[in-house]
Parts: sequence; C-alpha cells; structure tokens
Amino acid sequence: MSDDVQVIFTPSGKRGRVARGTRVLAAARKLGVDLDSVCGGRGICSKCQIAPSYGDFPKHGLHVEADALSPVNAVEERYDRVRGLKPGRRLGCQAEILDDVVIDVPPESQVHKQVVRKAASERVMEMDAATRPVYVEVEEPDMHRPEGDFQRLAQALERQWRIAGAKADLELLRVLQPALRKGGWKVTVAVHDAGDGPRVTGIWPGLREAPLYGLAIDLGSTTIAGHLVALDDGRVLASAGVMNPQIRFGEDLMSRVSYVMMNPGGDREMTQAVHSAMGDLARELAGEAGIETGEIVEAVVVCNPVMHHLLLGIDPVELGQAPFALATSDSLEFPAREIGIEAAPSARVYVLPLIAGHVGADAAAVALSEAPQTREELSLIVDVGTNAEIILGNSHRVLACSSPTGPAFEGAQISSGQRAAPGAIERIEIDPETKEPRFKIIGNDHWSNAPEFGEPRITGICGSGIIEAVAEMRMAGIVDTSGLIGSAAQVGTERCVANGRTHEYVIHDASPEGPRITVTQGDIRAIQLAKSALYAGARLLMDEMGVDRVDRVVLAGAFGAHISPKHAMVLGMIPDAPLSAVTSAGNAAGTGARMALCSVKARREIESQVRRISKIETAIEPRFQEHFVAANALPHASDPFPELRSVVTLPEVSFNTGGGSGEGGGGRRRRRRG
Amino acid sequence: MSDDVQVIFTPSGKRGRVARGTRVLAAARKLGVDLDSVCGGRGICSKCQIAPSYGDFPKHGLHVEADALSPVNAVEERYDRVRGLKPGRRLGCQAEILDDVVIDVPPESQVHKQVVRKAASERVMEMDAATRPVYVEVEEPDMHRPEGDFQRLAQALERQWRIAGAKADLELLRVLQPALRKGGWKVTVAVHDAGDGPRVTGIWPGLREAPLYGLAIDLGSTTIAGHLVALDDGRVLASAGVMNPQIRFGEDLMSRVSYVMMNPGGDREMTQAVHSAMGDLARELAGEAGIETGEIVEAVVVCNPVMHHLLLGIDPVELGQAPFALATSDSLEFPAREIGIEAAPSARVYVLPLIAGHVGADAAAVALSEAPQTREELSLIVDVGTNAEIILGNSHRVLACSSPTGPAFEGAQISSGQRAAPGAIERIEIDPETKEPRFKIIGNDHWSNAPEFGEPRITGICGSGIIEAVAEMRMAGIVDTSGLIGSAAQVGTERCVANGRTHEYVIHDASPEGPRITVTQGDIRAIQLAKSALYAGARLLMDEMGVDRVDRVVLAGAFGAHISPKHAMVLGMIPDAPLSAVTSAGNAAGTGARMALCSVKARREIESQVRRISKIETAIEPRFQEHFVAANALPHASDPFPELRSVVTLPEVSFNTGGGSGEGGGGRRRRRRG
Repeated sequence: MSDDVQVIFTPSGKRGRVARGTRVLAAARKLGVDLDSVCGGRGICSKCQIAPSYGDFPKHGLHVEADALSPVNAVEERYDRVRGLKPGRRLGCQAEILDDVVIDVPPESQVHKQVVRKAASERVMEMDAATRPVYVEVEEPDMHRPEGDFQRLAQALERQWRIAGAKADLELLRVLQPALRKGGWKVTVAVHDAGDGPRVTGIWPGLREAPLYGLAIDLGSTTIAGHLVALDDGRVLASAGVMNPQIRFGEDLMSRVSYVMMNPGGDREMTQAVHSAMGDLARELAGEAGIETGEIVEAVVVCNPVMHHLLLGIDPVELGQAPFALATSDSLEFPAREIGIEAAPSARVYVLPLIAGHVGADAAAVALSEAPQTREELSLIVDVGTNAEIILGNSHRVLACSSPTGPAFEGAQISSGQRAAPGAIERIEIDPETKEPRFKIIGNDHWSNAPEFGEPRITGICGSGIIEAVAEMRMAGIVDTSGLIGSAAQVGTERCVANGRTHEYVIHDASPEGPRITVTQGDIRAIQLAKSALYAGARLLMDEMGVDRVDRVVLAGAFGAHISPKHAMVLGMIPDAPLSAVTSAGNAAGTGARMALCSVKARREIESQVRRISKIETAIEPRFQEHFVAANALPHASDPFPELRSVVTLPEVSFNTGGGSGEGGGGRRRRRRG
Repeated sequence: MSDDVQVIFTPSGKRGRVARGTRVLAAARKLGVDLDSVCGGRGICSKCQIAPSYGDFPKHGLHVEADALSPVNAVEERYDRVRGLKPGRRLGCQAEILDDVVIDVPPESQVHKQVVRKAASERVMEMDAATRPVYVEVEEPDMHRPEGDFQRLAQALERQWRIAGAKADLELLRVLQPALRKGGWKVTVAVHDAGDGPRVTGIWPGLREAPLYGLAIDLGSTTIAGHLVALDDGRVLASAGVMNPQIRFGEDLMSRVSYVMMNPGGDREMTQAVHSAMGDLARELAGEAGIETGEIVEAVVVCNPVMHHLLLGIDPVELGQAPFALATSDSLEFPAREIGIEAAPSARVYVLPLIAGHVGADAAAVALSEAPQTREELSLIVDVGTNAEIILGNSHRVLACSSPTGPAFEGAQISSGQRAAPGAIERIEIDPETKEPRFKIIGNDHWSNAPEFGEPRITGICGSGIIEAVAEMRMAGIVDTSGLIGSAAQVGTERCVANGRTHEYVIHDASPEGPRITVTQGDIRAIQLAKSALYAGARLLMDEMGVDRVDRVVLAGAFGAHISPKHAMVLGMIPDAPLSAVTSAGNAAGTGARMALCSVKARREIESQVRRISKIETAIEPRFQEHFVAANALPHASDPFPELRSVVTLPEVSFNTGGGSGEGGGGRRRRRRG
C-alpha cells in the first residue's frame, strides 16, 4: 500500500497525491483548491464542509471505497449534534484522507463562489471580496517578550494563515486590546487586501460566525441609494435610499457648483451634508438588516464627478467650466470614516474611477455592470437621471458621454410633477378617438376607470408618468410633432383648455377639493429639452462610432427601470430600434457598485476598462447643438424612426396657427448641464 | 578625439565615461553621484552648484584643461547677476562636459550631506530626509484627455524625476487644483518616501526656494518640547516647549492611568488635550521661525509608552497593570493631522518604536542618539524625568529598563520645589565648617554671597538645586548616611530647626515678606525614594550584564544636562565611576527625534536596534526591591563608591537617636511607577 493517495476535487477537477492521513482542508490548500475556512482548521466554523463521493469514477480511473475518509470524529459529532451537518457532509479540517477519493466542494464552501445576479442580464458574479474574516489565536502578552498586542496578532496571522505583514491604523489599535481580552486571546479579524497588502480593519472577540458586510452606495444628485451586502455570498440584506441633503444648495449639479462659486466654504457645507447622509444611510441599512454598523467593513461608492468631488471634500469649481478638469480620476481607497460612513473602526471605502470630467464613477459602474465590451452587438446604454450618462460600445470600442437632461425626467420642473411615491400617476393611456385618459397611480394596481380603483388620493405625476402622458398625447393627436398642444377646437376635447396663450391638457380634476392635474405647454417644453439632450448625446456617440443605428438599447438607472420603451421612443428619447431590443437594466450603477464591493477582480477590470473608454465631451462638440435642435421635434425632425412607425401610428397634426415655429422650436435657451 | 570623456567627481571619487557634451547633472545621475536638484535641471533652483578643478591630477592620471566645461551660458549669467554664484561655481544642470574633468560637489549641493551635531557627543548625522521638495511642470488639462490633475502631476513626477506611482490622500487632493492653477501648472511638491512608496504631501505654486521643515517633538509627561528643523541640512530654526495639559488629570503617568480607570472616556479627554497642545506647539515653533505651519511636512514624536498610547488615542489602562501590554510596539507612520499637529495638508508623523511596556520611544530615541552599541566601553545612559529610562550596553549587548523615580527630581513633591524658572535656586554650596550656604538662582550669574547678587526675588528651588542641596548637606555633615537631618545641636548650626519630630535646614529666609526656603526631612525622603529607584534600575541592568562597574555614565534628558555629576554621585543616584567619565548628553531623546526626522536610515537603524535591546521589567524583578532598599542610604548602604570617596569626603555622622532606623530606612511604601 503506497504512502500517498490520490485525491480529486470537484467541481474544480484539481487532483494530486497527498500523504495518507492528510486532512481534506490541508489537501485542498496544497492543491490550490478553493475551500473556505474562517477558524483555520479548528473545527468550529464549519465553513470547510465537503462531501466525499464513493464508488467507481471511470472518467478518473478511480474507485473510491466507503472508508476512503477517516470515520466521523468527536469534533464532527459534536458539531452535528449542536448545529447539524447535512447528510453526507464532513468537516474538511477533520476528515483525513485514508485512500483514493473524490471530494466535492459545495458552492457554499467556496470562497470564490460564483453567484448569479437576479437582474435581467443574469450576469454571473464571482465572489472575490477584498475583506474576509479570519479567526486567530493570539499569544498572551509576557513581560519578557515586550512586543505589542498588535505585533503578536500579526505574528498569529502569519503563522496560522500565512498572512504576512498585516498593518493596522490608529482606529483599529484603539479597539484592539479590549477585544483580545474579551475573546480570551481568540478573535476574528477582518483582513482587507485589495492588492496593496493585508490590513486588519475590524476585530471581534472569539469566532465570528456571521459574515462580514459591505455597503454598495449609488450617490446621486437627488437620492443616495444603498444596499447592505453580505460579503460571503453577495446577497443583499437590505436596501434603502435617503434624499441627498445637498438638494437644499441646488437641485442640479450646476446649481451646486454655482453655490460654491457664490459662497466661499459652500463646498465644505455640502461635503458635511453628504457625509451626514452617508452616516444616516449606513445606520438605516444596518437597522433594517438587524446588524450593527460596526459589522460593516467595506463600502463602494459610485457617483457623478461633481458628487464625487463634493463627497471627497474637493471644491468642484473646476467641473463647472471648460476644460472640466477633475482633481483626480483614478479609483480611490481610503478609510470609510473619512466620508462619514458609520462602520467598523478601520472599514475601507472604494470609489470607482471617473471616466471624465462629466462622465463619472456611476457611468463606470454601469460599464462594469453592463460590460458592452463583452458583446459583438452594439449596445447603447442610457442611465437616466438629472444628468444622463450614455455609453455606446461593443467588443471593438466603447464610447461614453454625459448629457445635461435636467430633472424633468424625475418629475421636477413639471407643473404637476412629483417624485415617485404613492398617489403619483405613473402610467397613462389616452384613447385616440375620445381623447379621454385613464391612468394608474403608485400603490394601486387598477386603472382609474375600473370600479376597483376606488377613490384614492391622487397627488401628482411622477417621471415615468409624464413621459407616458406626453407620448400618449402625441399618439392621440393632442400634441403635434413640434410639441404644441392643440386647442379644444383643434383637438376635439374639452380636456384641452386655454392657459394664457397656450393650452393644457387636463388628466384629472378634483378641484376645488383636490388637485387638478394637467400637462401644460411648459411641461411639454421641459420634456422636449430633456429628451433632446439625451438623444443628442446618443447621436454624438453614434457619429463618433460611424453608425446610424444600434443593435440594442439598455435603459439603466432606477428611473430607467420604469420607463416604457414604446413611450420613450415616441418621444424620441432614444434612437429608433425594435422595441424588443430595448431592455431595462434596473439600477445598473448600483449593480456595478455591488460587483465592485464583492470582487477585487471587478475593480481591476473596470479600472483597466475605464482607460480604454473614449470620452466625448458634449459641451464642446458643435454637432451636439445641431443634434439637439433636430431632436426637439416629437419624435424627431429628420430621423425617420421606421421601427417605431411600424408599431405605432403618429397622427400628422399641426397646431401652429402661423407666426413661424418659434414657440415650438429648439431656440429657447437651455440651461447647460444639470 | 574620442566621443566620450572621463569625469571624476570629488569627494565621492566616483568616476566614469560620459558622452562629450553631457551636462554635469546628467553625468552625476548616471554615475550615482549625490548632486542635489529641486528644479530638475531647469537652471532656476541653483541646488546643483559644482566647482570644476583644473590642472594636473597625477593621482587620477588626468590633466584638466581650462575649457573642459562649456563656457558659462546665459542661464548661469542671469542667475549670477540676479542671485550671485560663488567664484568658480557652475550650475551642474547647465555646464556641459567637453573634455576630461574633475568636478567637486560642495557639501551644500549634496542631498545626503553629513552634518555635525552641536551636542557634546559631536556625532555626525547624515541627512536622508524622508521628504524632499521637487519642482515639476504639469501638463494642462485637455478635454480630450480626461485624466485628473493629480494623474497628470504623477505623470510629470515620473517623466521629470523618475518618481513612479506617487499617491496622494484626500487632504492633498483638496488643495491640488488651486495650487496648480496659481503656479501656472508649475509647482513644487513635497514628496515623502520612507520606503513605502512616494506620496505627495504638500504643494506650492511655482518654484519653492525655501527648504521644507519638520518638527522633532519630545512628548514628556510634564512638558512637550519641540524643535523646528530645516529638512535640507538639519539645522534647528526654533525650539520651544509647552506644558503637557494632561497635568490637570494627574501629575505622573500612573495617576493619569488611574484617571482613565476611574473616569470612562478620560482617555479621550487626555488625548484631546495633548492633541490641542501639539497644535499649539506647531504654531508657536512656526511663529518663532517666521514660517507658516503649512510649510511643515513631517514630524517625529518620541515619548514614553503611556504618553504614546494617550497621544494615539489608545486607552492606556493595560499599561497600568502587569504584564504591561502595549497595544502596539512598532514604529508608526500616519497623517500628522491625526494627532493635532498643524502642518502641510498631508504631512506625515513618524513615531519611534517602543522598547517595552515601560520603556518607550523616548528611550529608543536616546538609544538612537547615544548609540551605546557602537562602543566597546560599557555605557550607562540615564534619562532622568518623572520616569527614568535606563540603558546599559556596549557593542556586545544592550539592556534597557525604566524606573519610577517620581517627579522629585523635577522639583515636584519638594516643600520649596518649583520648576526651573528665573528666581529658582539651581546651584548651592554649603561650607563644611560653618554650615552656611551660598547659592545661585536662575537668571543671575552671581553667588548669593557676592555683592553683585543684589536683591533678586528668590522663589524656590528647582530639580538640580534640590539635588545639590541634599548632596551638600550630606558632605557638610548636616544629613547622615541614613538621610536624617541633624538638630541644631547635633550639627552645630542654627540653620537646622525643628519641624515637628524632624528637622529642616534653612537655605534662605526672607519671611515674613518673602519666602522661607528650607530642605525638610520630607524633601530628603522624596529624593531618597527617587534616587533609590534610579540606582536600583541601573543595578538591575548591571546584574543582568554581570558587571559591578560601568566605564561611563551619560546623563540624558533636559534635566540631566543640569545635574552636577559630583552631587549626583554623592546622592548615589548613579553607580560609582570616575567623575570625568560622567557626561551630559543634553536632551538625548530630543536629539534622537531630530536624527529620525532628518534621516530615514536612522529610523531603520533604531527599528532594528530596538529589536535587539533586551528589556528588563523592574516591576517584577525581586532583586529590584533589594537594590532599592540598599540604595536608600546616601550614597549607598553597601556599595563602597571608591571613585567618589577619592575626591569627596563624606562625614561619618549619625543622627539616629534610637528607635531603630525606621524613619530613615526604605520601608516607607513607595508609589510604584510614575
């Protein structure tokens, strides 16, 4: 009988020979098999569970006897009794390999497990978190060996885990001694290593059985959305959003930059405001998930460049004027406390790289999540917010720009506009014959003309509602191609009422007791400005790419998830494409943030990808203005939109009663950037 | 004529061949010659001045023609006209080597120049500062190349200085953009590299001609002393001290640890207090030197372990009880702002390693400064403060301990004691015949019995004064070997007056208008306790080393500089040695801090030396108590002190009138540590 035996690990297929009696965990380490362990083989964490397979394996030329592994030992018996082991499972740190064997490592025992995201694109995400929990037993202090407690902890990490040269900052050193003593010199530490060497960022007495947690934060101009993610398998435990308190300094980015220019120290006020909101968000997420903020060891933030600079405490004034110079464009990593996040003592934050002065880390996160460079087809990815980030690309080339759509798509600057909340109209249909509307409100599954609709409070119209309303008005012949609303006589409905020199369309009138919800000529103009900016940005990228059409359109952003592709195309928000080729990616920036949170590899991937993305600066491209003017019409003054017209009829009405097309044209001065 | 020529640099002796026409600075870089430059060869900083030598150099087998270097060019002419160049000097970045030449690099043009310290030991200090000023010209931002300003700065550092991979923290990024624009994309940056990669820590528009500055700080329990040092040549521009505001929480270290134990959050109060004092010190030093605090780019701090932990915000409670475990013992480097130092945005602070739970970074600094390991002779180095650090060593072995002397040596716990300030008695002589004293006070050069002494205000007695007073009393037969003060009748002077059951000796009596300054029996006891602790610590190290005598004694510490060796030995503060072998090293801890500030090599040296120092823990050595009791006598109960007795007569008096030696013995409970 040979002294060594053959072992094959599945699903990796890694195989080799080990000395008879080698424990499975040791064999896995020797052969480079991904088998988790937090306690380092002490039989207490159960992360190293494996399942031996018995019988014939002709593929491997192997027969595995039932006694190929040592019998279940006392440690395993106790573990099974107290916590329960699934049938057939063994603890890899206890079971010894006595004969040739095939060992399966189930997904939950792999550190670098693959996780399928639930989002539409079903992209597989590989877990490769920068921070992992490690259980260590530290030597007690001894007056004859005067090294500090941290030095002995570092020695233990090196001896027990081969983690050499671990460092710690002052915050960690401040909590070190009580934790070591409380745990009786046995502690679980969070070890962060994103390629720049190991760093102890958190410490818990004894064996920590719960996973470590991280925050994926999408810092928008209006809202700050966050997910609390378990760093062992990437699952989302809580999601929450808070308003960006910088709103009080200016609704859009440029008004915030202006605030800084007008108010010395205004940048610091805004930085403090967003830091305070970051703290609130961390507390809210932790509360929702039922954990302590001190269990959060990492955060990833994505945001646009102005938010980026204000978050970091950098005066954003240079971003308000050409050449829109960023103070720094690379990804950053620093202590999470520096931006107000309440977390473990030395928790780290990673901020994705910026693509350019107007194309931020949020766009980088979208690029990471949607990965247009991995497809042969040409994808147009549009992340709609107060500022739209637009990415166009395929495996050959990726372009990006941002376009100042303003907040109209979010229901702001709209007469009856409101944010998406119960009571807001979110869907609308207008009968092309009767010109009568019916609608749905958030929080009510029924159309307004159904008996089950009841008499709910109707409060206003949200972003997706206004898009549908304008598109339906266009399809019903209430609005003409130039964007003019017809009079009651022209359209043939009393719902078109005069409002000064223009008209408005009444969707719902509960006055005098309740609100009167209308779409005014001003609302149409605001939507036209926003959609023209969006379309012009996309066209600019298509010009640069030398194409006239795209293979697919992805609507990203929390808002993008609620836009109806048909209505968006009726408005001419996006280039013509088969409706089936227009999909929503949900909050792609948030997904990108989660991917970067769960994987160091993903960070490196986007950092190298960002360098390859070509940036188009809309602000200085003369053709942007041309595209913008042409895009003012509904859907467009010159682009034919054949795919759209194959499924939708657009009445050829015109309500311009002379005096030129002035009111309906694109001549009105837009406010640049938003 | 060959295309390359020979060049020899002095004083380094480095030689080699370079292409004809090579500039001297380029030749120096190629041959690894230490030739300074801040502007990178643009002819504006003048740091690269060199002096060519002409004629025959038989040693080198070389003849240098008068035209071996290119003629003085327009840049040099302008520089000479505007600022002046010394005769014979050339700018190394302008002069081209046209023929074989010998070039002298004067000391001021060397980065790693050697500087002789002014202190007694005249140790040569090599300049090797972690931070140096570097002038760069940064590319302007361009909308078609969207890298951030910092990325372009980093590229410039790499291209112009071969400094690759420079990093910056948020504080630096916050000041980057205005500085670049103010300097017209020409800036001088402070680049810090202590072996962990380059880091931009400060930025100034244009060429900064002034040097960068650093702080060397000796953080003591009672006072915080600092030097402001120019980092180009190590000169001290200002020195100042502030009181340690933690005094209000407890005079000695152990009472501060007790304060923390009794008052939750007390450690944070004390940390805030010392940070605030650090800020004050930085401002005071900068003000005195006429610079801005923003020009300070580095600081080095030395201190004892309790001060170390309180400075870093670490609860020092573990240092108050066995086994006196440090939270961390290694050297630390982190942003200076984290400990309240007002300095350049990203200024760094380096804290020397701790030797053990009771032997701090201050002792490490003394070891760095005095370097006992470089001598064959056995040195005993005593740093006297509220806590005494004692180092014993030679080239074979170095030992260290600390001993809780308490604050008596600083004039505290002494009836007429005060800190060293004008009006304090600092020297004293007592006539052995008449028992009459004469003294000198701080701020007056004359003895009190001289007519020139005048009638100054006499306020008390400082640390060195009380040591001399007790020693003189012993030599004059006023105090016996057990420490008892005799009565007027026993001693034969009316200056010995009764005070309860004991006696006191009147040095000066201006009552009722002014103070009555006496040495009481309690004062003698306080000094005995302090000196016994000091001596016992030294003896413990000598036991461990297996020796009965030392070759030399070095009195370190600001206070050590003022102690008279003879009087110290009469008291038995230090072991017997020839008086000529007892020297003062001044503030050796402060000097060590300066050395670490000026030299990365010095930091590495002490870090490796600290690991080789054997620590003796006085608190748990049973022999410490034995030595302590025996050392209570003046000078000692059993050690003979032959060297002392060869120069001083010690009267064999005894004032114990029965009742045992209780009052004079060492039985009184000492307060441990302090």
